[in-house]
Amino acid sequence: MATIRMPDTVPSPSQDCESLRKAVQGLGTDEKAIIRILGHRNASQRKKIRDTYQQLYNESLIDRLHSELSGDFRKAVILWTYDPAERDAKLANEALNAKNKTTNELQVIVEIACANSPQHLLAVRQAYCSLFDCSLEEDIASQAPLPLRKLLVGLVSSYRYDKEQVNMNISISEASKLHEAIKRKQLDHDDIVYVLSTRNVYQLRAMFECYQQNFGNPIDQDIKSCGNGVLESLLRVVIWCIQSPEKHFAEVIRNSISGLGTDEGSLTRAIVTRAEIDTMKIRGEYFNIYKTNLDGEVIGDTSGDYKDFLMTLLGAKI
Amino acid sequence: MATIRMPDTVPSPSQDCESLRKAVQGLGTDEKAIIRILGHRNASQRKKIRDTYQQLYNESLIDRLHSELSGDFRKAVILWTYDPAERDAKLANEALNAKNKTTNELQVIVEIACANSPQHLLAVRQAYCSLFDCSLEEDIASQAPLPLRKLLVGLVSSYRYDKEQVNMNISISEASKLHEAIKRKQLDHDDIVYVLSTRNVYQLRAMFECYQQNFGNPIDQDIKSCGNGVLESLLRVVIWCIQSPEKHFAEVIRNSISGLGTDEGSLTRAIVTRAEIDTMKIRGEYFNIYKTNLDGEVIGDTSGDYKDFLMTLLGAKI
Repeated sequence: MATIRMPDTVPSPSQDCESLRKAVQGLGTDEKAIIRILGHRNASQRKKIRDTYQQLYNESLIDRLHSELSGDFRKAVILWTYDPAERDAKLANEALNAKNKTTNELQVIVEIACANSPQHLLAVRQAYCSLFDCSLEEDIASQAPLPLRKLLVGLVSSYRYDKEQVNMNISISEASKLHEAIKRKQLDHDDIVYVLSTRNVYQLRAMFECYQQNFGNPIDQDIKSCGNGVLESLLRVVIWCIQSPEKHFAEVIRNSISGLGTDEGSLTRAIVTRAEIDTMKIRGEYFNIYKTNLDGEVIGDTSGDYKDFLMTLLGAKI
Repeated sequence: MATIRMPDTVPSPSQDCESLRKAVQGLGTDEKAIIRILGHRNASQRKKIRDTYQQLYNESLIDRLHSELSGDFRKAVILWTYDPAERDAKLANEALNAKNKTTNELQVIVEIACANSPQHLLAVRQAYCSLFDCSLEEDIASQAPLPLRKLLVGLVSSYRYDKEQVNMNISISEASKLHEAIKRKQLDHDDIVYVLSTRNVYQLRAMFECYQQNFGNPIDQDIKSCGNGVLESLLRVVIWCIQSPEKHFAEVIRNSISGLGTDEGSLTRAIVTRAEIDTMKIRGEYFNIYKTNLDGEVIGDTSGDYKDFLMTLLGAKI
C-alpha cells in the first residue's frame, strides 16, 4: 500500500552513490537527480546508499545533503534519507524539545507508538538511546506536560502482540471500564492507559466497536465531550492511530494545507513517514472524507523541488 | 563472572547430540552424561545443540529430557536447556498464573526487568508474545494484584539506557521526590514508578546513595517502614535488583535453603538464571553476608543428580 515507485532495474549502491556525488559536486546542485535517485529507493536500499557513500567518499551523505540543499526540500530529503527508526527517534526528540508542546507537536510520538508495528517502535527506542544517551520514556517522563506523561510513557513503552487475536469478553469489559472513566472525566485513569498501551490493535478496534454499540457514541466523540484540553485531543489521536492510521494521516495532511499558509513540517512528516507504509490508503481515505484529490491539493500548496519530491514519494512520475 | 566451565575443546553440536542421544536411549537414562554435556555449554552452544538434535532425530530435546528425567533435577535441566529469553518468559508466565501471587512468586518478574540487560528484557518480551499470544504487560495489567500492576507494567515495559550516564542534579531532585512519596506512604505514586522504571541503573544507584546521604536511611529501609504489604516487599526487591543483583540472589538462595525444607523452585531459578551472569559475585556476597560458604550450603540441602547439576553450574568438578 506504499506509493513509492522503484525502477525495474535498481542501480547498485555504488552506481547510485556515483550519481549522487555528481549531483552534489561542483558549482550548483542537481536537485532533480537527488529526487530521481533517493525518491525511488526503499529503506534498505537507502541504507546501503548511505553506507556505501560513507565508504567511497569518507563523508556522510546526510551531512552533504544538508550543506547542499535548503528549506523544506532539504528537511524532507534528509528525513527520507535517514534510517526510519532513527528518523522517528529524531522527530520524537524534536517534539519533546519544542517550546510549545501542543497536540500538534506531540502527536508524532503517538503516531510512532500507535500507527507503526511493535518492531518498529522497539527500533525507534533503541535508536533514541543511541542518539540521545537516554531512553525515550525517560525524556517523556521528565519533559512532557504533566497530564500527558502517563499516557505517553505507557504508549511508547508498549510492545503489543502483533497478530489478530480478539477476545470479545475482554472487549465488553474493557469498553465498560473506559466508558466509566470517560463518564467521570478521568482521562488519565490507569484503566485507560493500561488498555490503550498494552492490548493488540485488533483487540482495541473490536473494543472501540463494542463501546459504540453499548454506549451509543464513538469513543473519540465521548472523549471530545470531556473538554478541549491537550489530553483530550491527544487521546483522540491515539484512538485514530489505532483505529485507522490512514484516516489520521489524511486529516494531518488536510490540516497542514487547509486555511492560510501551509504547515510544511506536518505535511512532510505525514508523507515521508507513510510513503513506504500506507500512502495509497491515505489517498483513498482523503478522497472519501474530503471529496477531493490529495495529489491535487499537495500540488496546489507546494512548489519547486519540495513539491516534486513529495509528489515522487506519492508515486507521481516527475 | 559466570561460574560455568567449558571444556578446552568443545565437541561439535552433532557430537554433543550423539552423546545426548546415547544417554537418553534404551533402558535407563545416563543422567551423569546429561550433566557432563549440558552443564558445560553456554547459551549459544545449547541453542545449537537444541537445533541440531531436532534436525538429527526429528524430536525436541526438551521434550525428550522431560520424558526421561524427573523431579527437581528435570526442572533444573530443562530450565537450563531453554533459550534464556524463552526460559524467563515461561517463568514470568508461571508467576502470573500462580494461585498465590505473593512476593516470592512475583519477584521473578522484577528480577527479569531489573537485574538483566535492557536487551535481554526485550528478548523476553518478544519470546512472551510468541509463546503466549499476548504481551507480557497485557498479562500483568490483567492478572497481577492491583497494588502491583502499575509498578510491574512500568518495569517490564522499560528499555533503559545501558551505559553509565549519571546526572547528579537529577539524583538529588529525584531522591527528594521519592522521599516525599515514601513519607506519605504513597508507594504507587507515579513519580516512584517513572523514576524506577525509566532511569538507567547507574543513575538509580547514584540516586539511592543521594537518598541515604540526604535523608539518613537507605531507601529500602524507609520503604520497609511503610508497612508489610506485597507492594512494600516487591519495591524492596526492585531496589536490590538495581543496586546489587548479586546481593539479591545471595538472599534468594539463602531463603530457599534456610529453615526447614528447601524451596527448590527458588534455588533452581537463582542458580540457573545467574550461572552465566554473576554466580561468582553471588558466591562472594553470600560469604560476606552470611559468613558461610554458598557451595557447602547448597550441597547440604540438595542431593543426587539435582545436587550434581547445580554444583556443575556453580563450577564444581563433578
